[in-house]
Amino acid sequence: MIPAAVEALIAQFARFPGVGRRSAERMAFDLLAGGADRADTLRLAVERLSDVSLCPECGFFAEQGRCLICSQGRQDRHQLLVVERPMDVIAFEKTAGFRGLYHVLGGHLSPLKGITPDKLRLISLYARLDRGDITELILATSPSVEGDATSLYIAGQVEREGLNITRLGRGVPMGGSLEFSDAGTLRLALEGRRGLHGS
Amino acid sequence: MIPAAVEALIAQFARFPGVGRRSAERMAFDLLAGGADRADTLRLAVERLSDVSLCPECGFFAEQGRCLICSQGRQDRHQLLVVERPMDVIAFEKTAGFRGLYHVLGGHLSPLKGITPDKLRLISLYARLDRGDITELILATSPSVEGDATSLYIAGQVEREGLNITRLGRGVPMGGSLEFSDAGTLRLALEGRRGLHGS
Repeated sequence: MIPAAVEALIAQFARFPGVGRRSAERMAFDLLAGGADRADTLRLAVERLSDVSLCPECGFFAEQGRCLICSQGRQDRHQLLVVERPMDVIAFEKTAGFRGLYHVLGGHLSPLKGITPDKLRLISLYARLDRGDITELILATSPSVEGDATSLYIAGQVEREGLNITRLGRGVPMGGSLEFSDAGTLRLALEGRRGLHGS
Repeated sequence: MIPAAVEALIAQFARFPGVGRRSAERMAFDLLAGGADRADTLRLAVERLSDVSLCPECGFFAEQGRCLICSQGRQDRHQLLVVERPMDVIAFEKTAGFRGLYHVLGGHLSPLKGITPDKLRLISLYARLDRGDITELILATSPSVEGDATSLYIAGQVEREGLNITRLGRGVPMGGSLEFSDAGTLRLALEGRRGLHGS
């Protein structure tokens, strides 16, 4: 008995990750209760998404030309951190522990799904490395079989004089419980153990 | 470092109840990743909300004229269930335990917030009762002090020959929200309804 216009909106909200039917209903009714102004503001915000493109340099979100990170004077311009998705850049920026540059691949290799090297932003990665400013390439693809394979593939392509290729440390996450860590994570944590005082 | 257009959308998503900053980010990035078609579909769905009005008969959501419930041939047209908000109607419809008519007040009395009787859809309620078809008025305002006061006020206004005034059984937890009550609880509350003055 819900009007078709409201049902259509609920269906769109329910497409978001982590939003079930009930949450989607709640959002739609909240928007209805919010009045025309609020719905207009949301509509315009969604419309403005079409202004968002990918930075031609690094592949992160940008509005006009290069993204806010590439156009900044970054402190460590000799470090390049390679991630799969734009959201990963935001996750690293929140740590405030990295002041270098990023490169977003747009996914990971998955031949069975047709994601071959030419589908990722690799040509522009090689071009950036060719310029010779980068001395450390940090491969931060997702900690999965496909992510690892992608990192290994890239490492094989970009080996060159004066370029240090690293990847993220593996181990037990902060705040995690050993009891609920999977065997693979614990094995990696053991292999990656460090001296308690210094490295 | 998030583009302003994306930030604007995150801010709108974060206004929804139960959606925090992180969920809002996730939704915005999901929409970005979904491409122009998906964003367009959402934008149009939001735009279509302006077609949604309130049913002149009962105050529930409608698209043109009367709502889908009032224009249906409802089985129990002598029962009128009074609720505060349109979402409450949906909650009762989901129980499939009520086949009568609804009346949406648009809120509850709250003199301190300036919500006096004239702010609620009471005139149209009285008019419906005056027609004489209704033999039972079920007051299903929210189980709160204001909701109870609203029901008592209405009961005082509508007492008339041949009208049985009931309220929901106290299966509904105090302070709870009708919208999020499970169907079983709502059905029990319907079955356990009592006369407003004594049992």
